[in-house]
Parts: sequence; C-alpha cells; structure tokens
Amino acid sequence: MTETEFIAALRKLPLHKAARGLADDAAVLEMGGETLVLTHDAMVEGRHFLPSQDMADVAWKLVATNLSDLAAKGAEPIGVLLGHVLGEGDTDFIAGLEDVLSHYGVPLLGGDTVAGDGARTLGLTAIGKASYTPVPSRAGARIGDAVYVTGTLGAAMLGFETLRDGSDNDATAYTRPMARLAEGYDLAPLATAMMDVSDGLLLDIYRMADASEVSIAIDSAKVPVADVERRMECLTWGDDYELLFTLPGGTFPPVAATQIGRAEPKGFAPLFVDGEAITNPQGLGYLHQ
Amino acid sequence: MTETEFIAALRKLPLHKAARGLADDAAVLEMGGETLVLTHDAMVEGRHFLPSQDMADVAWKLVATNLSDLAAKGAEPIGVLLGHVLGEGDTDFIAGLEDVLSHYGVPLLGGDTVAGDGARTLGLTAIGKASYTPVPSRAGARIGDAVYVTGTLGAAMLGFETLRDGSDNDATAYTRPMARLAEGYDLAPLATAMMDVSDGLLLDIYRMADASEVSIAIDSAKVPVADVERRMECLTWGDDYELLFTLPGGTFPPVAATQIGRAEPKGFAPLFVDGEAITNPQGLGYLHQ
Repeated sequence: MTETEFIAALRKLPLHKAARGLADDAAVLEMGGETLVLTHDAMVEGRHFLPSQDMADVAWKLVATNLSDLAAKGAEPIGVLLGHVLGEGDTDFIAGLEDVLSHYGVPLLGGDTVAGDGARTLGLTAIGKASYTPVPSRAGARIGDAVYVTGTLGAAMLGFETLRDGSDNDATAYTRPMARLAEGYDLAPLATAMMDVSDGLLLDIYRMADASEVSIAIDSAKVPVADVERRMECLTWGDDYELLFTLPGGTFPPVAATQIGRAEPKGFAPLFVDGEAITNPQGLGYLHQ
Repeated sequence: MTETEFIAALRKLPLHKAARGLADDAAVLEMGGETLVLTHDAMVEGRHFLPSQDMADVAWKLVATNLSDLAAKGAEPIGVLLGHVLGEGDTDFIAGLEDVLSHYGVPLLGGDTVAGDGARTLGLTAIGKASYTPVPSRAGARIGDAVYVTGTLGAAMLGFETLRDGSDNDATAYTRPMARLAEGYDLAPLATAMMDVSDGLLLDIYRMADASEVSIAIDSAKVPVADVERRMECLTWGDDYELLFTLPGGTFPPVAATQIGRAEPKGFAPLFVDGEAITNPQGLGYLHQ
C-alpha cells in the first residue's frame, strides 16, 4: 500500500472526520476554552536523515519540523513527547535535544524509548496552544488575496549538498532549520490561509490552491532564492520550513515576507507559474507516494 | 547507551522537571481549566510484536496499550495521533485501527506516515482529559493502604504462547488487550496510587513501592492467575494491562478487583512477596535495559 492509499484508507474510517492532520497539517482540538494544536512527525534513518549525520542535528530537526507545523497554526508550543529508538549517537542526540528545547523554551513531557535494529524511525509529537482562533488552515485563501512567503527558499538544499559533499560551506539551514513561531503568532489573526513549506514551495502552493479552491498565480522571479542559477530547484526542493500565507488585498504583512503571487478565480489548473498552467503536482516537490 | 542511561540523561536536561512520563507514566498538563493527560508508546517489529502477527491485532494493541496509560490516570481519551511506517499488512492494520477506535469511541486526530525498510517502529500518541484531579500517580501509596489489582494475571502470557506455538487456544488476551478505562474513572477519586501493569505485576508493584517510599507486602496466592501451576511466571510476564492501585484501609473498591497486599512502613526492601524481601527488580518482569 502506498502512503497516498494508506492515508485515503484512514480517511474512510467513520470516526475520523476531525483528522485534518493526516496530510501534514496539524490537528486542532477545542478543550476547556483553549484550542489545542497537535502534530506528529516521524524521521526515518536513510530517508529523512543521513546515517552519517550528527545525531544532535537530527534531534534539532525532529523538534524544529514539528514546531514549524505549530507555527503555521499560530500556536505556542507547550511541550513535546519523544518516541526514540536507541542507537549510535544517543549522547549527541540528547545534546541536540537540549539545544532545541532550550532555544524554543519547550519542555519534554514524556514519550517512550525502545531498542531497535536497522534503520531507526524517530517520532515526535508536539502540542501547542492556539494564540488566535479560528486557527489558520491551508484552505482559506480567497480570490484576490496576495500570496507571501517568509525567508529564502533553497537554503536547505544547499545545506544538504554541503553535508553530502563534505564541503566547508554552512549546512545549518539543512541541519538546524528554524521554526517560524514568532511569525506564525503575528500572522494568525491576519492570514486567510497559512501552512509551512516542507515539501517544496511550488508543491505546497499547489496544495494550498487546491484546498482553497482557487488558482494561485506566482511570479517565480519574485521568490527570494539561495541560488539564482538554480531557481526552479530552490522552488521545489523543500525542507526550508518557511511560512506560506495569504493576506487580503491591502493588508500589509506584519513580518518580513515577500509577495510572490495572487489568488485568482479557480481556473483549469490550481497553480500558474509565470503564466504556465500546472495541472499535476508531479515534479513540484517531494511527493509522498 | 542503554535505555536506563538514555532516560537518566533526558532527566538531567534543565527544562524537563515535568517529564514524569519518561518512565511509563503519562504526562499531566494543566490547560484552560482542564487537565490533559498525554502518552506516547512505540512498538518495534520483532520486539513488541511478532513479524508473523496479524497487523490488525498490532494496531489494536498499539492503541489499547496507550489507552491503558490514560486509564491509569482516570482520563477520558479524546484522540490519538499515529506514527506509521508503511509495510506488509497495512490493509489489516487499518481494519484493526478501525476496530479499536470504534470500540473505545476515540477519533484519529492525525499523525505521520513514512516509508521505511526493515523492522518497523510504530508509534502512537494518546491524548486524554482527566476525569478527576489530582490525577493519580504511582507515587501516592501510603502506609496502611490496601493494594489491589484488577483482572487475572498471566492471560497475556498464555495468549502469547498460543500464538507462538500455533495452537488453537484463545490468544485474545495477548493480541487484543483491553484498556481498563471505566475502572480508571471509577478509581481516580479514591485511589491513593494507581498505574497499569505492563511489564509484570511484581516489577510494577516494586516500582510503585519505590516511588511511594513505602514497602509493599503481597500474598502471591491471592493474585488471580491464568495458570496456577505457573503462578510466578504469571506474576512476572507482563502485557496484561490490568490496573494496580492502592486504597486507604476501609475504602471498598468500586470495581471488580482483588486485594493482594498492603503498604507498610518503608523497610529494607521495597517489595515483600510471601514474607521474602525483594531488594532488586531483576527477574520481577520485563526490565528495560
């Protein structure tokens, strides 16, 4: 069964209408007058991290990528639960965990530690509290909204290549991505749609347009990229954990961000890049099979 | 690094004083006038389930064992997040997931699905709402309290052997354990200490006594066991997910349970079995290394 088929089957279960989180989005749950935001991401050795990688960086990324899901909901992290498989580099893993939890001021609440063989799967659950309701979703973009992205795309790609090739360049954008929590808080009351960019900017824009039932037209030259010679790679590689969001026309973003396009009436394609219709997500980023 | 060393290292991190959940207990968190209870357990192929096992049963057990942690806190489950590694038997896995979620009326809130090779690690996070505060912990047993356990111990062991040997006996106690949620609700306002029995009754009593700074003396003959010829195995095998709890003298348990011993002033051993002092947890159950 492919991942797509598996998720489709999960969605058919009668009880799981609330399971928005099954496709990258975090789950949103009302409780005691507060709104909880919950997310769980797993990282597999050899797929999501290199076996040779510093386990301190793996711990950082495991936490930061989950916090990025909370950021996209404008949520304040209140804790994480770790699902850890013991193995090489555990001392470094704990050091990296301390770094990232201290950096974000987030407590470890619990979890489970198991012995395992072979490629390890590390899991993390992050719990947050919404700072603003309704919590932004990827499905809220409206016709006429301006489309923005924070930061520079492609930095993680260059970081990955640095690491892979053993060069002396800075790999931090890949090894220790930052969750845009402060930007998420500031944007939550204003953004009509918001999500984090994890699988590639173009793919995530495609998904936002599709979920919002609009078309999004972007001007690729406007997107800040880490390597202008490789613009399209930067727009499709992923792992940057920037925030993609839409604002109504006339609303100025309260955070550093670049307008890269606009939401239009739903046309025959969800995405238009420099006027070219993109009718299929293939090739736009990291597609789960 | 062993699991014990890993957990000890996690506990030294400055931020994690709230991380009670690091040793089997669920984490407890106040939020918006409610008390959240959170737990995450992982199951590794070849260690926590047999590679030949029906994946529907694996899904059931993954959920039920986490709900058992909520039961021990008297918490009502409000949802689960799944960390799934794709592989053989995914259709069965989803069928078992539907069974267990429907049985307990618990929604799937989200999670992550990843591709992986080799022995799979499946993770589940369960979130619950405390029905009574303060939430019971394993550390609350007081001198003079009566010590009780629900159900019959050793049934999971016999179920496991049935499955391993391919016999026709009923393996349900091992393959589809039940979380004692109703008992947990009823006991939460009364129990001075409570925990679920996952690693073996004697080991878990030892841990309760140690955490509560008392000694617990039990009469092994009083414990209901699935095979009286193999009483000590039944008391040490684990996987039964019964509730172990203490009540003040004179308080009658509101659920079906058996009094098996009493909490006494802390002596030179945490546990006395039929008068014999047990000073070391080795051999009492499934000890994480």
